Amino acid sequence: MPKTNKAFEPQKETLINIALDIFIEYGYEQTTMTQLRKAFNLSVGGMYHYFSSKEEILDAIIQHGLQQAVEEVRGKLLEIPIEKKLYYFISDSSANDFAMKLYQYKDDNKNSLVAYKLREQNVNLFIPLVIEVFEESINIGLYKTEFPEELAEFSMLLAKAIFEASFLPEGNLEKRKRRVDALLHIFKTAMKAPEYHLKKLRLAFYFALESQHKFLNSKINNLEKKQ
Amino acid sequence: MPKTNKAFEPQKETLINIALDIFIEYGYEQTTMTQLRKAFNLSVGGMYHYFSSKEEILDAIIQHGLQQAVEEVRGKLLEIPIEKKLYYFISDSSANDFAMKLYQYKDDNKNSLVAYKLREQNVNLFIPLVIEVFEESINIGLYKTEFPEELAEFSMLLAKAIFEASFLPEGNLEKRKRRVDALLHIFKTAMKAPEYHLKKLRLAFYFALESQHKFLNSKINNLEKKQ
Repeated sequence: MPKTNKAFEPQKETLINIALDIFIEYGYEQTTMTQLRKAFNLSVGGMYHYFSSKEEILDAIIQHGLQQAVEEVRGKLLEIPIEKKLYYFISDSSANDFAMKLYQYKDDNKNSLVAYKLREQNVNLFIPLVIEVFEESINIGLYKTEFPEELAEFSMLLAKAIFEASFLPEGNLEKRKRRVDALLHIFKTAMKAPEYHLKKLRLAFYFALESQHKFLNSKINNLEKKQ
Repeated sequence: MPKTNKAFEPQKETLINIALDIFIEYGYEQTTMTQLRKAFNLSVGGMYHYFSSKEEILDAIIQHGLQQAVEEVRGKLLEIPIEKKLYYFISDSSANDFAMKLYQYKDDNKNSLVAYKLREQNVNLFIPLVIEVFEESINIGLYKTEFPEELAEFSMLLAKAIFEASFLPEGNLEKRKRRVDALLHIFKTAMKAPEYHLKKLRLAFYFALESQHKFLNSKINNLEKKQ
């Protein structure tokens, strides 16, 4: 019996929430479709009505979590003056519970398919928002470039590469700061960003990197104490 | 009985070759350790002497294939005048049989763990070579920058993002050419690369993109004919 779209969607969200908890508990690779189907309390036919593979469930989880995160950031950006939007982008790390769980899973399983997919989609889904901010910045004369879209894409990818231990060889805090300086050198030369703006961006980047560094160090210390 | 390193290494290479063929035939996700162990003709203990997990075998395959590819490119670069090294980097697509098989597997399974790991390691393992080329280019006055290492890293990652349907949202040929232009704009402004050099880089990039495009189109046409 065909369901209406309206009845279908909230149900799917419930399934996605259950699935993420199972992946966190048992690991994505180890979880089977049968296990998920039983947790969903669905028949074989009912299951295939929603998802035809484990990877499809994973993709739905990632899309759902990131879409929520993007909407949240988009909402907040509306309240912020144009020039401050990029600083906000760098320094903000808030996210809803679902996305937080997902990011946590990624941090605990850095080389898993889940982590790779999430990192890639994270870049892809936030790019439209970064392009909007770049275009607004060009409109007010903050940046000058013929390549707003491409430089927004590049900046998003490079900023993610600086923060994540992925995309580029892992580096210590000093190395990451050098990468920030190199990225801001591109902002300065390729987009003619003014000095006061670069200074604020540098502060926001450094602050975010140092917070991340402290957070990771305290995590390592806690783990060592437990041993 | 402990083996000498000399006897150990060639044997491991044989196992890696067998494993890649099995991954290609059955898919990495579907292959089990037992299946690999039997193909290797090893006892359970013998197997764990070499590899303790399927992922370790995959990592060894990727390291082996890419290390060979890097050495091959490094050898060829020695024979090329400095200014032409970067054009060569962009336009060359030669690789040994093992690496070719591996790249083929990645192209056929774009969203697999194998593909993600290979793309990441491909960037990481080639970066030292790109840094060398950038530093030489600075020495002869072709590029001018305080950030040779970081801009070499960024350029490698961005060039890969332009060629691979990964890291950034997929784009058509025109979009990819715009990304090349934006990357060369960075070369021009952030590294003060001269106009004649940029023209040659652009030609090399466009040529490589068009070749890739034609190759993919003919592949799609062949698949459609078969249906």
